[in-house]
Amino acid sequence: MPSSLWYYRKREVTGVAMSNFKKLADARQFSAEKMKKNGLFETDRFFCDTYCFEPGQEQSAHTHAGQDKVYYVLEGKGLFTVGDEQRELGAGEIVLAPAGQNHGVANRSQQRLVTLVFVTPKPQH
Amino acid sequence: MPSSLWYYRKREVTGVAMSNFKKLADARQFSAEKMKKNGLFETDRFFCDTYCFEPGQEQSAHTHAGQDKVYYVLEGKGLFTVGDEQRELGAGEIVLAPAGQNHGVANRSQQRLVTLVFVTPKPQH
Repeated sequence: MPSSLWYYRKREVTGVAMSNFKKLADARQFSAEKMKKNGLFETDRFFCDTYCFEPGQEQSAHTHAGQDKVYYVLEGKGLFTVGDEQRELGAGEIVLAPAGQNHGVANRSQQRLVTLVFVTPKPQH
Repeated sequence: MPSSLWYYRKREVTGVAMSNFKKLADARQFSAEKMKKNGLFETDRFFCDTYCFEPGQEQSAHTHAGQDKVYYVLEGKGLFTVGDEQRELGAGEIVLAPAGQNHGVANRSQQRLVTLVFVTPKPQH
């Protein structure tokens, strides 16, 4: 069996066993290299992830033509850009990046930044 | 001008002024009568709300044929049902109710329960 098929099957099995119930603490992983996305849920309709930023890391401004995205700040502070607006948000604050609007996040603080992220609908590529 | 048209226009103006940036503390409203949904964001693709439960209040088990829903617990503890599974979740825990699966929430505790909720796609009715 080619190793790629084995990998696919392994992922499938993992998917079946995956619980609908999760702790966000289990999806709080950072990377020294760049900001890290940790998957929580994925269906045909949406993604739900955490994005974890070390101090100085960022997600460069970009646009999704057909997807809305929501960031909810769990921990730390981030500089969020949506369209022409830019604001620093902390824990308990939430921001919508509607489809077609340029958006990005920068951690300019000395602390880690963790956000919960929803993207819908799921990109088709 | 009929009053319904005036109301529609007022809503439109409110919509235009509505910010993409919000504090969840501003959407933390309870009702003595039943659990309260407070709207945060709404697009053509999804809803994002808080659901606020006084002790003893609940959202009865129900099913959406075509919508996925995610509950993230912000405060308190709730008994969450998805399909055949039932678990008590507290702050920092998250649950997916996939389309077609029966789901509900009950606050059996003595404290208030607040959850962040995403529903996608937006129901067409």
